[in-house]
Amino acid sequence: MTIAFLGLGSMGAAMAANLLKAGFPLTVYNRTAEKTEPLRQQGATVAASPAEAVRSADIVFTMVTDDKALEELTTGPDGILTTLPQGAIHASCSTVAPDTNRRLAEAHRAHGSFLVASPVFGKPDVAAAGKLWVGSSGPAEARQRLKPAQDAIGQGTHDFGDDPGAASVAKLCGNFLLGTVIEGLAEALTLAEKCGLDRVGFYEMLTSTLFNNPIYKSYGKLIAEQHYQPVGAPPAIIRKDMNLVVQEAYKQDMPMPFANIVRDRLTATVALGEPDVDWASFAKRVSEDAGM
Amino acid sequence: MTIAFLGLGSMGAAMAANLLKAGFPLTVYNRTAEKTEPLRQQGATVAASPAEAVRSADIVFTMVTDDKALEELTTGPDGILTTLPQGAIHASCSTVAPDTNRRLAEAHRAHGSFLVASPVFGKPDVAAAGKLWVGSSGPAEARQRLKPAQDAIGQGTHDFGDDPGAASVAKLCGNFLLGTVIEGLAEALTLAEKCGLDRVGFYEMLTSTLFNNPIYKSYGKLIAEQHYQPVGAPPAIIRKDMNLVVQEAYKQDMPMPFANIVRDRLTATVALGEPDVDWASFAKRVSEDAGM
Amino acid sequence: MTIAFLGLGSMGAAMAANLLKAGFPLTVYNRTAEKTEPLRQQGATVAASPAEAVRSADIVFTMVTDDKALEELTTGPDGILTTLPQGAIHASCSTVAPDTNRRLAEAHRAHGSFLVASPVFGKPDVAAAGKLWVGSSGPAEARQRLKPAQDAIGQGTHDFGDDPGAASVAKLCGNFLLGTVIEGLAEALTLAEKCGLDRVGFYEMLTSTLFNNPIYKSYGKLIAEQHYQPVGAPPAIIRKDMNLVVQEAYKQDMPMPFANIVRDRLTATVALGEPDVDWASFAKRVSEDAGM
Amino acid sequence: MTIAFLGLGSMGAAMAANLLKAGFPLTVYNRTAEKTEPLRQQGATVAASPAEAVRSADIVFTMVTDDKALEELTTGPDGILTTLPQGAIHASCSTVAPDTNRRLAEAHRAHGSFLVASPVFGKPDVAAAGKLWVGSSGPAEARQRLKPAQDAIGQGTHDFGDDPGAASVAKLCGNFLLGTVIEGLAEALTLAEKCGLDRVGFYEMLTSTLFNNPIYKSYGKLIAEQHYQPVGAPPAIIRKDMNLVVQEAYKQDMPMPFANIVRDRLTATVALGEPDVDWASFAKRVSEDAGM
Repeated sequence: MTIAFLGLGSMGAAMAANLLKAGFPLTVYNRTAEKTEPLRQQGATVAASPAEAVRSADIVFTMVTDDKALEELTTGPDGILTTLPQGAIHASCSTVAPDTNRRLAEAHRAHGSFLVASPVFGKPDVAAAGKLWVGSSGPAEARQRLKPAQDAIGQGTHDFGDDPGAASVAKLCGNFLLGTVIEGLAEALTLAEKCGLDRVGFYEMLTSTLFNNPIYKSYGKLIAEQHYQPVGAPPAIIRKDMNLVVQEAYKQDMPMPFANIVRDRLTATVALGEPDVDWASFAKRVSEDAGM
Repeated sequence: MTIAFLGLGSMGAAMAANLLKAGFPLTVYNRTAEKTEPLRQQGATVAASPAEAVRSADIVFTMVTDDKALEELTTGPDGILTTLPQGAIHASCSTVAPDTNRRLAEAHRAHGSFLVASPVFGKPDVAAAGKLWVGSSGPAEARQRLKPAQDAIGQGTHDFGDDPGAASVAKLCGNFLLGTVIEGLAEALTLAEKCGLDRVGFYEMLTSTLFNNPIYKSYGKLIAEQHYQPVGAPPAIIRKDMNLVVQEAYKQDMPMPFANIVRDRLTATVALGEPDVDWASFAKRVSEDAGM
Repeated sequence: MTIAFLGLGSMGAAMAANLLKAGFPLTVYNRTAEKTEPLRQQGATVAASPAEAVRSADIVFTMVTDDKALEELTTGPDGILTTLPQGAIHASCSTVAPDTNRRLAEAHRAHGSFLVASPVFGKPDVAAAGKLWVGSSGPAEARQRLKPAQDAIGQGTHDFGDDPGAASVAKLCGNFLLGTVIEGLAEALTLAEKCGLDRVGFYEMLTSTLFNNPIYKSYGKLIAEQHYQPVGAPPAIIRKDMNLVVQEAYKQDMPMPFANIVRDRLTATVALGEPDVDWASFAKRVSEDAGM
Repeated sequence: MTIAFLGLGSMGAAMAANLLKAGFPLTVYNRTAEKTEPLRQQGATVAASPAEAVRSADIVFTMVTDDKALEELTTGPDGILTTLPQGAIHASCSTVAPDTNRRLAEAHRAHGSFLVASPVFGKPDVAAAGKLWVGSSGPAEARQRLKPAQDAIGQGTHDFGDDPGAASVAKLCGNFLLGTVIEGLAEALTLAEKCGLDRVGFYEMLTSTLFNNPIYKSYGKLIAEQHYQPVGAPPAIIRKDMNLVVQEAYKQDMPMPFANIVRDRLTATVALGEPDVDWASFAKRVSEDAGM
């Protein structure tokens, strides 16, 4: 089972390393070549283009920034579909619109290959530990074949059926929920602080009782301590995801008031242009609006 | 250590029963007398008025509907302070404005007794299991003396210091966070459903991975199955709490956009007047706005 | 027809001056005495207390900051009701909760006098020009008798019937609508500017076509030019009004999403504590959130 | 000056009729042919395709549903640019994204013709009366030549300069402001009604005093009387506009809380699927949320 991995940001690099560790022969490609070096040292072959990377792959993972990058990588002039072998599987891990994966799945079908949406839940440190949660949707037989590779990067894979858009929907909803956790905690901790409670102490109480949960603990720590490093994902990246949520809701004729607020918090954060902060830093807007 | 318990709604009755089980001599009072009967059978003495109930109490617990009921019960013509022994402790468990507990604490001080804010986190079934989380704030020595009784009703007590309003702040912030969980899940599950995912299946995936947490599981089940029974707390009661949150935020010069939305969801739910549903039923508004 | 005027802020002073100009014998009172001097020079008698001011009044106008100030002025130890003659009319002009005017109307009834809610629409310059719009509600006969005095301060009086709370409802709804104009214009002008249009030019186009209206012109000018002086009313005063709107909506079981946003914009503006700006300055929050 | 008019909905038909009345030789085209008949009877030539309609036109007006329809009409296989004479002007009247007009302006430039964004403000009855307000932006010389035709359909044309996207920005901002008027009035009138005021009477007071303005009068009448006919524009059409506003704000890094709410009100209205109502009918959501 030969695997190609395209897109070696902090998430992709960690996932690729785990595929290597699990013993899969791996070819990697990244637009900026220096990011391939650590993986080369761990045993990966480095390719000079997407087309070259996937030429003899059984499976190709992609983990890129947005819908446009994924489309180019897949159907562009030097993209995956120019060389991908018949019967191969494209594990599409990026957070993109459900329709993007659906459209690319059509292109794969025409080509004689398969797309399985394979988004992952977790920050870079979780990815490095091989503890991601993986969603999976697409043609049943391809999903089955992809499973061992997904097992190498995560602690569990959830099956969302045949629709290649389904796992993307789940991913968007998951990211949306993370955004509600951040805004909720930011409002709660700020009100508590304004009322005289110790911000960090209250965070510790909440996350050792009702909200004893890794998500609340990890995001809550950033918000309680108001220190938004290291960067799991920058505001601009997740804002794009929240815009996908809002636009999918529009398409589905559905109001989402919390999603609007989270999206706009991220928009303000992008507009203010603070560099090198995690997206949870939109919690600062809550404090600022309170004059703190 | 003789205890009086005033206010035997579904929460209060369960808490009182656990005090009995722990061996505390207990006198109970409730406005509608028939609710005292099960506790009488379990060994409690039944009093005919608040004043009578607390006449020889070391500790008096109160668990009533709102600020006004608590004030009347405490400082009213037949209230606690007409007969409470010097040095006794009032464990004020209701969800009320921080300033209400602060004001009543002053009245206790003048009387020679103590008020310890002692709000609890958890639904009636959690209360029955003695697994509540308890917040505690007020005079240090009184907090210390109250601890064994708090231990009898909860699985842990968190100390918020000397300000008798502090634990109320924590309770309001906690209820606010529960409201954000409900709205967040309602939006996420509804979008997922509209996009073709199985509502219950997606709930199960979320709460066995990222949101593997009792709060998400218990509220999420109601929302996923869209069946809002049994009633943990009715919409009108929690709406009052959310209004306390919004008004405290106003007092503290702090915008809280999520709190506004949750409060207004509950307002619409009260306006629509559906009887016998848990407050999580405000999640229905999300579906209705989506034409479902 | 002898008139007393209590509360000589920028609105009250202008209204009192117009009563003098119309020939009414006038006694004035203000908590800080120096504000009475200009009116004394115009012919008013100056009183040292509310009780003294109204001792021989047929009509007493009040224009004070908030509900609490009005209650004290009316039913307090040195208040209006200690000396007001039987049959006299209290024209209650302050923006207060409907229930406040209703409650004070009861006190007047018991005293043998009348309260007519008489809120006014317009900024200080409009008040000075005698061009206010006046709302009027309360006992029919008293409303009738009050009319000539209302005519002296406004360009028209609208009758809201017998309920002394009704005109207050109208006033709160009016102020709420002004808030929506400000937020709406702020968002529209800021988006236009971000897209490359001239902010002031677009304002001029809008207010000479679709929104050719004094409200849009006067608030729009402040927002277009981003210069929030002179101060018609400061943010803290109008925030109080918007909180009355939100609380009245709560009481009436009615969600008001625009009101929440306007109130919270004003809350952020109060929290940021900029002195000496008109309340329309909450429009700045729109620009700030956009990184401008 | 020969004119072609493509797109004869209720707005387009009224505008075309006024061009005829002003003496311009006119060729018309509409996808569903029967709508051309009344104009044929008034003297228009009827074309069987866009390409045929514009073959000898000096000016071509387009008034179609959305961006996609406009793009197809302009650059599609049987579109305007297949036959439009060199030097001719495309007056693009539809409400579209600024970038759509910018992109089509590029296509015109390449073709040797001109695009002038020429959006109009006003309902069908205003269009029929020739009283629209017209925005105009694009190449200066083309704007100049287009002016007489714009004068025939409106009461005034406002110049937004050379950027063919600029007038579209103005149009989007204008529609957004109309949406804020509707939501604002709906909240104000509903609160007033809940508090016991007469809904229509209060509307009449507001629109004869502070909000004495045709927009407030015409939309306010629909909202006060809760009768949303005749249909100026249906909810689905204006929802598309509000989504363009929200997406343009996203692109410009700008939060717009009021725009989110208006858009989502329209989304709920579309989801509920009531036929044959004006878009102002989203005001019903305010009443429904209040249990009325």
